[in-house]
Amino acid sequence: MISFNNDYSEGAHPNILNALIETNFEQTDGYGEDYYTNLAYEKIKTALNCDDCHIRFLVGGTQTNLVVISHLLRPHQAVISSDVGHINVHETGAIEVTGHKVLTTEKIKDGKLTSETIKKVLDIHTDAHMVQPKMVYLSNPNELGAIYTKEELKNIYEFCKENNLYFYIDGARLSSALASEKNNIDLSDYKDLCDILYIGATKSGALFGEAVVFFNLSLVGDFQYSIKLRGALLAKGRLLGIQFNELFKNNLFVEIGKHANKMAKKIKDIFVKNNIPFVVDSYSNQLFVIFSNELIKKLSDKYKFSIIEKYDENNTVVRFVTSWATKEENVDEFIKDFKEIIK
Amino acid sequence: MISFNNDYSEGAHPNILNALIETNFEQTDGYGEDYYTNLAYEKIKTALNCDDCHIRFLVGGTQTNLVVISHLLRPHQAVISSDVGHINVHETGAIEVTGHKVLTTEKIKDGKLTSETIKKVLDIHTDAHMVQPKMVYLSNPNELGAIYTKEELKNIYEFCKENNLYFYIDGARLSSALASEKNNIDLSDYKDLCDILYIGATKSGALFGEAVVFFNLSLVGDFQYSIKLRGALLAKGRLLGIQFNELFKNNLFVEIGKHANKMAKKIKDIFVKNNIPFVVDSYSNQLFVIFSNELIKKLSDKYKFSIIEKYDENNTVVRFVTSWATKEENVDEFIKDFKEIIK
Amino acid sequence: MISFNNDYSEGAHPNILNALIETNFEQTDGYGEDYYTNLAYEKIKTALNCDDCHIRFLVGGTQTNLVVISHLLRPHQAVISSDVGHINVHETGAIEVTGHKVLTTEKIKDGKLTSETIKKVLDIHTDAHMVQPKMVYLSNPNELGAIYTKEELKNIYEFCKENNLYFYIDGARLSSALASEKNNIDLSDYKDLCDILYIGATKSGALFGEAVVFFNLSLVGDFQYSIKLRGALLAKGRLLGIQFNELFKNNLFVEIGKHANKMAKKIKDIFVKNNIPFVVDSYSNQLFVIFSNELIKKLSDKYKFSIIEKYDENNTVVRFVTSWATKEENVDEFIKDFKEIIK
Amino acid sequence: MISFNNDYSEGAHPNILNALIETNFEQTDGYGEDYYTNLAYEKIKTALNCDDCHIRFLVGGTQTNLVVISHLLRPHQAVISSDVGHINVHETGAIEVTGHKVLTTEKIKDGKLTSETIKKVLDIHTDAHMVQPKMVYLSNPNELGAIYTKEELKNIYEFCKENNLYFYIDGARLSSALASEKNNIDLSDYKDLCDILYIGATKSGALFGEAVVFFNLSLVGDFQYSIKLRGALLAKGRLLGIQFNELFKNNLFVEIGKHANKMAKKIKDIFVKNNIPFVVDSYSNQLFVIFSNELIKKLSDKYKFSIIEKYDENNTVVRFVTSWATKEENVDEFIKDFKEIIK
Repeated sequence: MISFNNDYSEGAHPNILNALIETNFEQTDGYGEDYYTNLAYEKIKTALNCDDCHIRFLVGGTQTNLVVISHLLRPHQAVISSDVGHINVHETGAIEVTGHKVLTTEKIKDGKLTSETIKKVLDIHTDAHMVQPKMVYLSNPNELGAIYTKEELKNIYEFCKENNLYFYIDGARLSSALASEKNNIDLSDYKDLCDILYIGATKSGALFGEAVVFFNLSLVGDFQYSIKLRGALLAKGRLLGIQFNELFKNNLFVEIGKHANKMAKKIKDIFVKNNIPFVVDSYSNQLFVIFSNELIKKLSDKYKFSIIEKYDENNTVVRFVTSWATKEENVDEFIKDFKEIIK
Repeated sequence: MISFNNDYSEGAHPNILNALIETNFEQTDGYGEDYYTNLAYEKIKTALNCDDCHIRFLVGGTQTNLVVISHLLRPHQAVISSDVGHINVHETGAIEVTGHKVLTTEKIKDGKLTSETIKKVLDIHTDAHMVQPKMVYLSNPNELGAIYTKEELKNIYEFCKENNLYFYIDGARLSSALASEKNNIDLSDYKDLCDILYIGATKSGALFGEAVVFFNLSLVGDFQYSIKLRGALLAKGRLLGIQFNELFKNNLFVEIGKHANKMAKKIKDIFVKNNIPFVVDSYSNQLFVIFSNELIKKLSDKYKFSIIEKYDENNTVVRFVTSWATKEENVDEFIKDFKEIIK
Repeated sequence: MISFNNDYSEGAHPNILNALIETNFEQTDGYGEDYYTNLAYEKIKTALNCDDCHIRFLVGGTQTNLVVISHLLRPHQAVISSDVGHINVHETGAIEVTGHKVLTTEKIKDGKLTSETIKKVLDIHTDAHMVQPKMVYLSNPNELGAIYTKEELKNIYEFCKENNLYFYIDGARLSSALASEKNNIDLSDYKDLCDILYIGATKSGALFGEAVVFFNLSLVGDFQYSIKLRGALLAKGRLLGIQFNELFKNNLFVEIGKHANKMAKKIKDIFVKNNIPFVVDSYSNQLFVIFSNELIKKLSDKYKFSIIEKYDENNTVVRFVTSWATKEENVDEFIKDFKEIIK
Repeated sequence: MISFNNDYSEGAHPNILNALIETNFEQTDGYGEDYYTNLAYEKIKTALNCDDCHIRFLVGGTQTNLVVISHLLRPHQAVISSDVGHINVHETGAIEVTGHKVLTTEKIKDGKLTSETIKKVLDIHTDAHMVQPKMVYLSNPNELGAIYTKEELKNIYEFCKENNLYFYIDGARLSSALASEKNNIDLSDYKDLCDILYIGATKSGALFGEAVVFFNLSLVGDFQYSIKLRGALLAKGRLLGIQFNELFKNNLFVEIGKHANKMAKKIKDIFVKNNIPFVVDSYSNQLFVIFSNELIKKLSDKYKFSIIEKYDENNTVVRFVTSWATKEENVDEFIKDFKEIIK
């Protein structure tokens, strides 16, 4: 079986694995108080062109979102998200479990937020009988694979600052966004585009790991406590440092995104050529397309991909995902088989 | 510097690291739905001599405790712990953050619970104006390094069953307990000694990982949801499976405990010989002793160990910890230096 | 000024006030363990034609909803509500603060739930990465003044039972529903229409007070603890008993609804006659209509009513509410003035 | 039966009841946005000699404590209390349910806090692996009936300010403290003695009601939201205003305390004269004494009082409480009967 099911099907990028092997017997302090973690912080700060940011590493995505959001909000405050936002749908209510409502904007085809849709949420939450919107959450690329432009994020961030909202960007697949042909945002731009950025490594070649970057230092507070009390402080914290240290050497993080996107593009091209309908256009490592149930059946003997939802009686929305580990030969084989089946 | 600071200073046991290397490019399903995870479940069931238990893997200790405890308790229910219990002191209120009071038993020198001290807590919580005690938590070895006997755990479990309390054992350092000269409990005994056991791997040679074992299947419910909503469901779940699979091959888990205890015993012997006072007697991989501040100063140039708390003006409680990775040559060097300094 | 702003603008119905005066110096046990509370339970059970139900009194509506919902749901479970549901919009995230997501059904003009719209929510929440829908919440009359029929509630309850959902009806204004010309449900029918009913008194002539009725006794559990831990256990509990005791004497509860509805009907008629557009048709004590901003301005010198939301540049949605205390002479005066202004 | 069981056995002080009757048909805005509430705020400010404080009314004591404490603390922060503190024992974990640990000081005979015992708690909570103590809670009079002096509170408040702790005083029975012969604190002193004071009315002649007073305005924030989201915002808020308005007319609040204390003193005297042992000496309206079980049995036919806990095989700790409503003739009758029985 060849899997395009997700971007966390394999272990770690070889550079990362080698670094773990080489450092295995060194003795370090726990909980991220080690040399490698600090080294990785420095590398990321360089990539972000930001000396003054505060960075901490966590293990997973839902964990990162719940730690960051519950760190910032008071009990009466809510976070605004797209209705397809990961925190709204796919985190088993993790944000609500910490006591906060996720307010959703109106349904938009590509799932992207705008200051206009955010404003509509603010307009109807105006007194103490309703939650107080205090934060905006979005993912780039978002949950449907769409990419934000620099202007779009700038516009949202301006709106947030005018309205006393924190702006938090979930970059679980940021490497793919950075490498996208539609992207015009450099890592070093992000410091001017949001208060907090999370840079994902789990889906970009690490065994696990997400970096939370506070550009807005006034929000840091006792973040270390917030990590610990959610059970998110890794004992062998250096594992996160070692991995991020590798990802931010020689541009590896963006290279991983490039490879993933390139593999996705090859698959996209064959879908386009064969008039497979896209749910939304994609320029990242995720493709959301509508397959006939018959096509799914024929492909499923040899290929894995995600079943998202029923489209109609005869068709289904499916997702193809590529990664640093996707082998071009497997993509080519898929293309060959796909052509064969579709004709 | 040589560190006896804790048992999570190094990476992973070589067997585990090799297994991660060998499997690195295999494609598996995420979230623990993979071959290795199931294989590890089977190995652990065999070691526990228990076909009918339910096992899930989590990443860290505080995470495991908060997921398990909040999974089982309703909002009005509390967990009973020793006053030195990890959940009571060293988890930044992680249990309370999930909404539950930690009720502590009266102070006992070695920190061990008994049905008598638990009963006193029950006796004063009798109506709806007070929390309802519903669970007993203890660690074996406990936070002061003490080891429970089979009879002691059996007695507590009987009491729990008579009083409708869940009994949950935190085995963060279970390998050390199993290997202790004071231990008379085999892994296969635990199914008759508690409702839920957590078998720790982070402190026994894994990069990270803790196994939660439900012997009492009526308590499983929607545990997978409980894991996910706390951000504790690892995307690359197979990493946990691969690691536990190695730990439960060829008795490695217990061997790791044996080595750690043996190294601790060598250090203990030199302390005993030199009349260093122990806070509590220890037969596990943790030693709690009282050092003069002068002694601490002299040793600290070359050795790391944990400062626990001030004992009096001139003396301090310190902790020495050994592990699978503690090199006997380093222990010998410490002993030599210690003798030199102490004389 | 004459107020049609809400149904909690005055003190208590004279019968209730007199009962409070008469009993003032009696000594009773606290926390609802008194004679009057038990007497009121019996009267309500008679009205419900249900010996086997469990009743408890609380102080307010948001309090009641959060106590009941958090009593029933586990951390991974969510409650389904209309998007206009009181718990979704007007309780400052009180349900989320207890850790539970409010899942909303698609937007429906009159805000009424159906098994079809509930089913759509179930259909997209199918695994442990999403919350588990476990409860259905609706108000009768609902937040837009609409009235459910017996068949509609029966249909939803059947659906709930088939799908293991608890069904909870918020009757904050139940007296108005019972007295509505569109209503075909007697109080004694409710035992077959839901698991839990809350009968509101605050908006039906009491100083305060809401009765929670568990028809499904398997859900009672430690409800007294759930009340206490949310700070909802009134010390002088007999105040609730005394008030409900009066409301359920001589059909007072329904009479109060009849008067409120009758007053609303008179106002409705004049609006209809003058082609004032209704947001939804209403047969209860709440009227939601669209006023021109000019009309609002002219009426506001003498009359109070609620501004709900902007409709367009020149028009606004407003709400008129009547109650047990609405004087017919005031209604007549309003009608006279309204005619004058509108012509 | 004559009850000395508690100070919430009757309805309301006649002045309060009369005010409720007189205002019953006035129309006011809800949720405390009314004339009487503002009038009561002004009266309390005058009594406190503090123009610049922020006041809000709530319904009950546990509710007040949980709203205030959860309003002020972030998730990693804890409140320090005496081990006998109401929030620690008798609120069914209400504080923990909002996510916060209650840290207890060492056991002190009369349950009074001191800066020394508070400091010991701070000294062992020093890093992110433990909760962060951020607030001190005490009751005056405390849960054992003891009275704080001005110097004691001043000392604690100084300590709090030096250590960045909020200081919150629970005055559920403040009227009794103010009227105590041991008291040297005037209401107008409190503004210099703490950040937040709660002035209790439920136990001082109101049907219900507690006033939260923020002397430290920097802590007010969005307190109205904090009230609403816990279900603690009373719809007919004027009921609280009307009641407090009466309590702070003509010194009624203190007069109520005086009467209660005077009645308690008469009972105390007969206990002292007959060598009934006191658990702690008392100068407030609560008496904690040790009765033989035989004595309890003899008195229980005619008198109600609280059984607190077993003292030994033959003796039991009991509590006598007096209030504004305690009739001197009943006290005299008790004294007569007591003498008869004891001799």
